[in-house]
Amino acid sequence: MPRDAPSVPIDFATEPGRYRHWRLECDGAIATLTLDVDPAGGLFPGTELKLNSYDLGVDIELADAVTRLRFEHPEVRAVVVRSGKEKVFCAGANIGALAKASHAHKVNFCKFTNETRLAIEDASAHSGQRYLAALGGTAAGGGYELALACDWIMLVDDRRSAVSLPELALLGVLPGTGGLTRLTDKRRVRRDRADVFCATEEGVRGRRALDWRLVDEVVPPSAWEAAVAGRAAALGATSDRPHPLPNPPPLAGEGRVGAGAQGINLPALERRIAGDAILYPHVRVALDRARRRATISVLGPPLVPADLAGIHAEGAAFWPLALAREVDDAILHLRFNEPGLGTIVFRSQGDPEAVLASDALLDAHAGDWLVRETRLFLKRVLKRIDVTSRSLFALIEPGSCFAGSLAELVFAADRALMFDGTRAGDNRGGATLALSPLNFGAYPMGNGISRLATRFLGEPDSLERAEARIGAALGAAEAEALGLVTASHDEIDWDDEIRLMLEERASFSPDALTGLEANLRFAGPETMETRIFGRLSAWQNWIFQRPNAVGDEGALKRYGTGQRPRFDPERV
Amino acid sequence: MPRDAPSVPIDFATEPGRYRHWRLECDGAIATLTLDVDPAGGLFPGTELKLNSYDLGVDIELADAVTRLRFEHPEVRAVVVRSGKEKVFCAGANIGALAKASHAHKVNFCKFTNETRLAIEDASAHSGQRYLAALGGTAAGGGYELALACDWIMLVDDRRSAVSLPELALLGVLPGTGGLTRLTDKRRVRRDRADVFCATEEGVRGRRALDWRLVDEVVPPSAWEAAVAGRAAALGATSDRPHPLPNPPPLAGEGRVGAGAQGINLPALERRIAGDAILYPHVRVALDRARRRATISVLGPPLVPADLAGIHAEGAAFWPLALAREVDDAILHLRFNEPGLGTIVFRSQGDPEAVLASDALLDAHAGDWLVRETRLFLKRVLKRIDVTSRSLFALIEPGSCFAGSLAELVFAADRALMFDGTRAGDNRGGATLALSPLNFGAYPMGNGISRLATRFLGEPDSLERAEARIGAALGAAEAEALGLVTASHDEIDWDDEIRLMLEERASFSPDALTGLEANLRFAGPETMETRIFGRLSAWQNWIFQRPNAVGDEGALKRYGTGQRPRFDPERV
Repeated sequence: MPRDAPSVPIDFATEPGRYRHWRLECDGAIATLTLDVDPAGGLFPGTELKLNSYDLGVDIELADAVTRLRFEHPEVRAVVVRSGKEKVFCAGANIGALAKASHAHKVNFCKFTNETRLAIEDASAHSGQRYLAALGGTAAGGGYELALACDWIMLVDDRRSAVSLPELALLGVLPGTGGLTRLTDKRRVRRDRADVFCATEEGVRGRRALDWRLVDEVVPPSAWEAAVAGRAAALGATSDRPHPLPNPPPLAGEGRVGAGAQGINLPALERRIAGDAILYPHVRVALDRARRRATISVLGPPLVPADLAGIHAEGAAFWPLALAREVDDAILHLRFNEPGLGTIVFRSQGDPEAVLASDALLDAHAGDWLVRETRLFLKRVLKRIDVTSRSLFALIEPGSCFAGSLAELVFAADRALMFDGTRAGDNRGGATLALSPLNFGAYPMGNGISRLATRFLGEPDSLERAEARIGAALGAAEAEALGLVTASHDEIDWDDEIRLMLEERASFSPDALTGLEANLRFAGPETMETRIFGRLSAWQNWIFQRPNAVGDEGALKRYGTGQRPRFDPERV
Repeated sequence: MPRDAPSVPIDFATEPGRYRHWRLECDGAIATLTLDVDPAGGLFPGTELKLNSYDLGVDIELADAVTRLRFEHPEVRAVVVRSGKEKVFCAGANIGALAKASHAHKVNFCKFTNETRLAIEDASAHSGQRYLAALGGTAAGGGYELALACDWIMLVDDRRSAVSLPELALLGVLPGTGGLTRLTDKRRVRRDRADVFCATEEGVRGRRALDWRLVDEVVPPSAWEAAVAGRAAALGATSDRPHPLPNPPPLAGEGRVGAGAQGINLPALERRIAGDAILYPHVRVALDRARRRATISVLGPPLVPADLAGIHAEGAAFWPLALAREVDDAILHLRFNEPGLGTIVFRSQGDPEAVLASDALLDAHAGDWLVRETRLFLKRVLKRIDVTSRSLFALIEPGSCFAGSLAELVFAADRALMFDGTRAGDNRGGATLALSPLNFGAYPMGNGISRLATRFLGEPDSLERAEARIGAALGAAEAEALGLVTASHDEIDWDDEIRLMLEERASFSPDALTGLEANLRFAGPETMETRIFGRLSAWQNWIFQRPNAVGDEGALKRYGTGQRPRFDPERV
């Protein structure tokens, strides 16, 4: 548990009217996200969020804004991220909060902020919403890392404002939100310059920042506002999002322009926490603290809209979107508020045919802006599951509906077990697993390829064999023969096998499991994203655990005390 | 320092006549490496190396054998790795030794064993020496990981012998020598099967081991010896190494066959440790413990052979090879015996033209087996430098000879500083840096591309500009303009700038520097090798640092005591 934990569970639900740290303003095709942190609004008691420094609470608002911009504002083509304070863009993560946090909270905090920055890049790459970092003052540490996630970085050239990654010099840790990877891989900064930059507490400004590719543009103060507006408009012009109505006029029929240009509202999730259960309309989470596991049961679609108009009419109630939002919330809740539950078991209940019908809609209307956003949101939620440091098991049982998009939970799991045959007295028949076209590319993992392609890297024939069975209700024997599940057991063995598997898992070292899963889940290609979660984060986790950072004389502990840290000089 | 350190510095020099744990036998094109560990021959006092388990001392012999096979036995086309003990191939790393070792020793041990296994794969991929793992008994943990580094894994099907990775279940850590990465990336084992395999202490045997791609062949005991011999011959047939003389008869002239088929002897290195200096014929290491740094000065070639025959006549005395062996030994010595020296400064002294002449020979005779081995050895030594967790600086000064192959030390450095102009009273003229064709592909990093290509990922024009200046003696201004050095300073500033840079470096957290450097050095493509050092090792380092592994109730500490470990269940 956090050493100095927030007094209430961390809640990821918010909306612009409740933001304390960000302002979201939309003006036609251009939105502005203004960071203006309330110093007294920290999540940890006693921390003061000075100089636009942030903690998890600030980032929860940013993540919410990034999602809402996509669903609620189809007309927004460019987002300007700027500061509401003079002379400073953002001082990065708040060190007081970081120093007070438990190791697990630090790691989860970095993971969540990384996911939010990747969501910004995803909005630009796949959803046509471009991000402009308008640095009207110094961007330090996590502040500069936020800028690095944007498409274009403008820095005011006032002889004072700089970009910097002072973590090494000030804190004895690494930039924790992808900074090093974006320097080397996204901006391809020369390695020795990156080394100098990371060792320079005060950072780099003006011409040198441009020459070293740390920023894309430097602008004198007198030309600043005009340049920001011009650059935002230019970025927006590269977008494929719907134009704001009525200019240009809507086209007839479906598509990215026209019917879709009316955003949908994302209402607050209905969630009820009752003892050891967390209940949403489509998701039930059962917590078993004694056995250290959580079971997430997802419910299939109650109804499937008839057509695209039906999807838009349902809006946030459209089952795939509603489900994705609920699962996302549940996973984040488990990550932050239930760190002792080491295993997550996925179950499902419903009509597989309805899931396939829903998938058919998502497939047929892939070009519609709202369907696109829904698919992309599902993709991001599934990726969040992939990098969740809990053992993941899926149980495919009579009455379950792991089909198409829902079957991605099966393929995200470390193991999937399938019930073979029927249960005595259960008239729902045998368990089935079904594939849809969406299992073959709609939801790539962080490595850029689908879960099935990753699974079958060593046997491409298996991928083709699976594809040939799209739509079929696969029984246990066939699913196992196709390599889609780990094993199947009949009624005689099922309960014991599952119990033994879960007990065994709970007996292993939680740390070794985290490392094992982080390695086994991501075979195949590496991307900036997998490098951030796999390489950079692993090193940061190690550093976060070392006495040189978190010991009584370590740099994180001594930051701000006026005392210099004392380091064990031994290199590892 | 190791908690229970070996009583004398670890020495990496050995030769087959001194092996205690391996036997190397050559029979024409087939060599056999037999692991027969002397239980009393452990490096740490009081450890017993049971069941062919190994410690660093065992692996030093293996690394030596792998190198000697390449230089001393050009006729060897396949190497059979097997056990000298009944029923067990190898039980993996010795846990007693691991539990006694300091964190730094554990990490360095894993790094070295990883390098040795990658050297086996390098021998097969680039040098035509194929490796066959003949598992006549169980291969557990590091024993199976050694097999995974071979081209082909045969397992005896005696209903008892298995392959296993029991680290998770037994020790609460990960397989530390690339096992997970080779499962997912080399053998492309399906992720859920890999998960089951890693959770199964007793491992997998027989048909299932084959079906899961954990081994390549299972053979009944009665057919074992014949099958091993046949497979070794078949593997050897795919090799491009010289055939043993005289069949087929030597061809005239140079080439892989003929003159080269006579191996060269690798004599013991001449090394003298004198106080704070380590002296080799071509390398001088100065240790400054107060300032926590080591300076490695390399001397250019005293003479350059006239032709290929001259190279063969010189054998191990050929300067590039001699230098590479000395640098390799110096780096390993610093890694293991001087962990408090956080910075390595590279300097050089000699005639840059002679280095370029040596490079011209290495370039012109690339097809000769000995030249090939020499280049490949240089490549591996440079890679060892890349993954050495010390800050690396190169100083290019008047009288230095950083040219061609030696300039790779400059490009391997985190920063390179160049002296601009001449020193008063120094008649050697200004410092120069020179490129040769070998800087553009002969020595790829672990990421598969050259150091210059990695350096210039963001500016391909710079790579071309540099290539156009091959052979030129570049002064400081031009070297800096070409992006080949980090900065240059004239006589007025040089001493102060260098001193300040080194002092600043020594003030930073050693752990944060290790993480920073591990991330900044490897931009661009990822390979199995970079994943092993960057992703897998980082996770393992973290786990090695966690109380669940190394705390008093941790799994490593309690292994073998009969007491079960107690884990903090919190997931991070």
